[in-house]
Order: sequence, then structure tokens, then C-alpha cells
Amino acid sequence: MSLSAVEIIIKKREKGELSKSEIDWLISNYTNNQISDEQMSSMAMAILLNGMSREEIKHLTQAMIDSGERMDFSELSKPTADKHSTGGVGDKITLPLAPLVASYGVAVPQLSGRGLGHTGGTLDKLEAIPGWQANLSNQEMFDQLEKVGAVVCAAGSGLAPADKKLYALRDVTGTVEAIPLIASSIMSKKIAEGTASLVLDVKVGSGAFMKNIESAQKLAETLVSLGKDSGVKTSAFLTDMSTPLGRKIGNALEVEESIEVLAGGGPADVVELTLKIAQEMLALSGIEADPAENLNNGKAMDKWREMISAQSGDLSAPMANAKHSEKVYASKDGFLELDALGVGMASWRLGAGREKQGDKVQDAAGVVLHKIQGDEVKSGDLLAELFTDSAEKMEGSKLDMENAANIVQRSERKPIVLRELR
Amino acid sequence: MSLSAVEIIIKKREKGELSKSEIDWLISNYTNNQISDEQMSSMAMAILLNGMSREEIKHLTQAMIDSGERMDFSELSKPTADKHSTGGVGDKITLPLAPLVASYGVAVPQLSGRGLGHTGGTLDKLEAIPGWQANLSNQEMFDQLEKVGAVVCAAGSGLAPADKKLYALRDVTGTVEAIPLIASSIMSKKIAEGTASLVLDVKVGSGAFMKNIESAQKLAETLVSLGKDSGVKTSAFLTDMSTPLGRKIGNALEVEESIEVLAGGGPADVVELTLKIAQEMLALSGIEADPAENLNNGKAMDKWREMISAQSGDLSAPMANAKHSEKVYASKDGFLELDALGVGMASWRLGAGREKQGDKVQDAAGVVLHKIQGDEVKSGDLLAELFTDSAEKMEGSKLDMENAANIVQRSERKPIVLRELR
Repeated sequence: MSLSAVEIIIKKREKGELSKSEIDWLISNYTNNQISDEQMSSMAMAILLNGMSREEIKHLTQAMIDSGERMDFSELSKPTADKHSTGGVGDKITLPLAPLVASYGVAVPQLSGRGLGHTGGTLDKLEAIPGWQANLSNQEMFDQLEKVGAVVCAAGSGLAPADKKLYALRDVTGTVEAIPLIASSIMSKKIAEGTASLVLDVKVGSGAFMKNIESAQKLAETLVSLGKDSGVKTSAFLTDMSTPLGRKIGNALEVEESIEVLAGGGPADVVELTLKIAQEMLALSGIEADPAENLNNGKAMDKWREMISAQSGDLSAPMANAKHSEKVYASKDGFLELDALGVGMASWRLGAGREKQGDKVQDAAGVVLHKIQGDEVKSGDLLAELFTDSAEKMEGSKLDMENAANIVQRSERKPIVLRELR
Repeated sequence: MSLSAVEIIIKKREKGELSKSEIDWLISNYTNNQISDEQMSSMAMAILLNGMSREEIKHLTQAMIDSGERMDFSELSKPTADKHSTGGVGDKITLPLAPLVASYGVAVPQLSGRGLGHTGGTLDKLEAIPGWQANLSNQEMFDQLEKVGAVVCAAGSGLAPADKKLYALRDVTGTVEAIPLIASSIMSKKIAEGTASLVLDVKVGSGAFMKNIESAQKLAETLVSLGKDSGVKTSAFLTDMSTPLGRKIGNALEVEESIEVLAGGGPADVVELTLKIAQEMLALSGIEADPAENLNNGKAMDKWREMISAQSGDLSAPMANAKHSEKVYASKDGFLELDALGVGMASWRLGAGREKQGDKVQDAAGVVLHKIQGDEVKSGDLLAELFTDSAEKMEGSKLDMENAANIVQRSERKPIVLRELR
């Protein structure tokens, strides 16, 4: 077959529908460096602006999967269920969720990433626990799933290598926000990973990729149909990311808050979303149970300890404390409007996130909210505390935080779960 | 100023209008390799799909000019006038035109290129003349303009280097056909070259970049306004490229046909277009004359000999003859419809054009048309002869030629000049 990269780019540029063989050729040659980054970059922009049909996205996802290895959990003695969040500010749900679901006998194989930009990465958070190791071999992962039931670890380089290459390219070429590319990136890894069930948490709002409910709905529908086409039982929730999730944002801070939730406490929104996703993962795995039970009776906490210990984490050792802190106060009376993106930027600037791939993050940096969206405040009330090891970062972050916190006449909190797709 | 390539790409992706400082930053950093080819590639696709305002195209053209050196012909003792064709099949107009206009005391500084794809390059054609040299220093060019009046030579690497880099990138990333990029590419070189007047020949039809009159009109308007904004007296003609220009297509073949025109003969369409553009260049230079006069009295031919000799060309030496030839005959009675792109492909395949940059072209390869668009033909009439040094290329080319030549019930030739813009 004689295909040319330029002809395929022009076909998509002119709003044509690419065939399975064209997409396969494109992705396999990109993986083998026969198609250049320049060519894939103009292709990505054409896909972003002209879109792809359901069929094209399905073929693209399959081509990404075929670019690497597949994992196989069919030999496990228990069902597998996974979740994926599109990322938000204060989104630590994976931490309490994985042990909670595992406490019901379901295997949770959470292949996670590191953060880039204002949204945190699950691996960065768990690495705030002294000794905790993110890298496991496939065999170690399998053994931990069989023995403990929950694993959160780094995805190996063999899974969907085309996606890894394309993701790094999209990040520097202004082509991240393309639904066909986001959907195939997420689902190629989840399908190659081999989970039987999957719950998708698609965030909507200023702190998320998807700023409005229409684009989030479109992404969620695409993800669910890709999952179903590949025989993965898939549900999706559209959840609010107009304001941060919980009261603690930052790496060690989010571990702390997750432990509060596992201890039966924690902020209401984090608890609600953890239970909602857990119940769905259990239901997809054929288990009818009220997951609140194992949060309250300590079984989820026991599983958490097992999961962290299995990866050499030492929960008895103290986590890092920040060298510097500063407080932000209310300047007038009213009700608080708290913007997710602004708080995310404040936390990122304090050192909780990275500027570019490979940067180190600060374990202790971040924001603790004393008032949240919809709270009534009086002038002089403590709104938030900022933490960092780098004193020079405090001023800019404080400005971000002040801009993110608006005191208005009326304000309320949106429901956490906005829509459900099955 | 702290700008980011990704932010500028996203601004254009979201249909925003880029500021002068954003465009300047983009082009100067691309020229200095601070912005990667991947980034410029997604940017080019976003420009192609979302367009640019007149102001943006003006700033882009200026930024391209500022990326390199400018030439200055103000010390010349005569006015300067140049022409540019967007390229077509059999378009050898520059060859008779430059000496014809120079014969009236106007300096014609023709910086030309080599061909890529099915449209030929003026330098490739002139190089079919034994000894002829395309490369001149700026001083040699200036001296020849002063002494002879006409120069056709390769553009030096100092002129609009950003355009050279971007053009090579567009060629491999499916982003050639963007009006803002075509317009700024053409005009940056012409303005940096420093001509006082400019006539643009914007080709329309299957053998041209612009397949329909609406897009050609849009390009022409953009070019004319860019020229005027920069103080260059600029006119544009939209001319027909649905069928080849003249009867000879190929490098040495087009030199031959140009000499026929300079001798007062040649095909009517080539003569008409040469005179039309010459008259406009003269008028923009303040000279009222009927250029047919110097074609008929031999002054243009004298100037041609001077121009070729000044660049070491030997018009007394024979040009190359092709090793192989083949004839194509009419299969039925009727009128000929002859498609420009098909004939261009046939000639390209015979070896008159190159597959990729750096390839050698065959001087003698090409097509001689014995019947042209609108001619009445009888079954068995000779339609065309094909010439090549590579026997293996003959069969594919013959097929192209047969596909390009349709014998129908009714057919006529369009006017050469479709529209005029001033």
C-alpha cells in the first residue's frame, strides 16, 4: 500500500473521513519515526479543528493500543475495575477510592501519571509518603493485585507508546484539547491495561480541560462508546470542577485529607464523590454493597495501609512540613466564590506542580482552604493558608489566591455529580 | 515581553487575531530556531483552517521581510518592475517577458525558483541553455540590471530566510494552500527585493494552486493590498490555467517556445499574456508603449541574447535532445478538452520536474502539443509527442496524457485573462 503522510493530512484538513488503513499506517509509522513530529503536529491541529467521526476515533484508539503491549489480568481470582479522572484541582479521589473498592474483593489496577500544569498527579501525591515506590514490574503489579487488591503505580513504557509520543507532542503544539485525541489517549491505555470495568470522572469547569458541560458531555459519550466497543463495562460521571475538590490542595496535603476520609471524616464533597465512584465500580463488577460501610468500619483504612506498605511506603514516618506559610483573609463581608483554576495556579506556583516535564515537585507545598465555595464570610475571616519551601514564590501565589477568592452577595455550591452516562 | 509559542498557537486555533508583537515574536524566534518546526507546523495548520485578517497578513509579511536583508535598487538609473506567477503548466512567460520589458529601459530583477511538483521552475528552464548560471551575487545582479536591464537569477539565502524555512516545512505538512501563507511568502520576497512595481499573474484552474476563481480572487486582492501597503505599485491578473499555456511543456522545450515568441511567432496565448503583462509593467513604470513593437522589430530578441550571455549562457550551442519519444493519437472525432494538471503530471513524470527537493531534472523531457484546448480533431490525428531520457517513464506518462485529453462534442478555450485587479 502506497500512502503518503501529506495526502492523509490534507484529507483530514479538507474534513475527510480517514479509513482504518490510513489511521493504522499513520500511527504505526509515527511510532517507528517514519512520520515526523512536524507532520503529526499539523495532523493533530487538523483533527482538533475538523474533528473525527466515532469510527475514526475507534480506529485511532485501536491503532494506539496496537502500537504496544497489552496486559492480561484474566488469570486473577477477582474481577478488575479501574477509574480515570480527566484531572482537576484537589482531585485526590484515587487515594481513598482504590483501597475502598479493593476492600470488597475487587482488583483495582490504577496506572497513574505525574502532574503537568495546574492539575496534580496521583504519583506525585503518593510520593509524599516516605519510601513509597511508583515503579512496579508487570509481575509485581499482578502479584499485588492478587494479594492486596489495589495498586497505584506508574504506567510502563510498553503500554501504548504511540500515545506517549503523541501526548508529549500535543503538549508543546497547542493541540491538547482535541476530543478525539484526549479520548483515544485515555482509552488506549485503559483498554491495553486490560481492566474489565471502568468508571470515568469527566471534570467540568475552570479547573478542568473541559470548561463547559457540552464539551464534557461529548467527551464522556465518546469515552463510554469506545469502552463498550472494546468490551469494557464503562460508565462516566460529569462532575463539577468550577471550584476545588475538598479543602487541601498539594501533594502531602492531599494524602492527609485522603487519610481523613479513610478514617470516616474528611470534606463532604470528597466523601460523596469517592462513594459515588466506588458504588459504580462495585456495581459494574457485580457487587451490590454500600461502600460507606467499609469507610466507617475501618476496612478501607486497613486496605490503604496494606496498599502503601506493599509499595514500601512508611505511614508512621512524618511527611514533609513546609518552611514558609502565609495566611489570606477576607477583605469584606459576603459569600465566597472560589475559582478552581485560580486555586490550582496558586498551588502550582507554590511548588506543588511542575513547570516542565522532569521538574521536581515540593511535597509540602500547597493550599489549605478554611472557607470554601458558598460559605458565608465576615471581613477579617481566615480564608486560606499557603505553604511552600520557596519564600520567593509566596507573593505571586497570594495574588493568585486573592484573585481566585471573590466575596459576593450570593453564592452557592453546585452539585458534585452533574450527569451520569452509562 | 514574555510570550509563549503554545499560547499564540492556541489563540489562532481559537480564531483569535494575533497582534503585531505576537507575529514578530513568532517569526523571529522561528528564524532563530527558538520555536520548533512542530510548533510552527500546528500554527500553519491553524492559520490554514482559521485564516488571518488583512492586518495579520500585513504583519506576517513584514516579519518575514525583517527576518533577512533587503535589496536596494534606488541607485539604479532606471525604474524597476517585476512580475510573479503563482505557477502553472507551460508557464514560460518570464523568459520572453523580462527581455521585452528591459528593451524599453525598465530594470527587471527576476528572482526565481526551481520547480517542485508538476509546475516547472524558471531556473530549471534556463539551465537547459548550455553554460547558463543561475547564481549571482547582489553586486553582479545590480551591475547586470544597470548594464543589460534584465536578470533572472536564484534568490540569495539572505532574503526572507523565515519564508524559506517555513516554505520547506509547509511542503511536508500539508499546509501549502493557505492564502495568508502563500501571500506573505510571495510578497515578503518581492518587497525585500525592492522592486518599485509588480505585476502578479494569479493562475486559476486544475493546473494551479488556486482551483477556483473565488480563492484566486481572494489571493489576488490580498497580494495587491500587501504591495500597496508597502509602497509597491502592484497590479494582478487572474489568468486561466485550466489548460496548458502554449504548445511546449518541459525545460528545453519551453526555452524553444520562448525564442519563437521573441522571434515574433509562437502560440497566440503565450504572446497575448506576455504582451498583457509587459504593457502593465511598463504602465506602472510610467512608460506608454505598445510592447508588440519590440517583439516584432527584434529589440526584445537582442535583449534576450544580452541577458543570457551576461549569465554565461551559450545560445549557439545545441540544447539536449531526448533519447526516447512517443506519440499520442486521437481515438475518435470531436473537440479536444485538455486538462492542465494531467498534462503537467505527464511532463513531470517524463522527468521535466522533480519528486523531492534536490532531484535533478531532465533538460529535454516534456510534452509537445499538436492539438490544444478547443481544437477540432479527427480519429487518428496526432495529439501530442512525449520526450524523455528514461524509457521506463514513458508508459505512465502516456496514460496521464490520454487521461488529460478528452474528445467531446463541444469544447472551447477560455479567455487567457479572466480578471484584472489594480
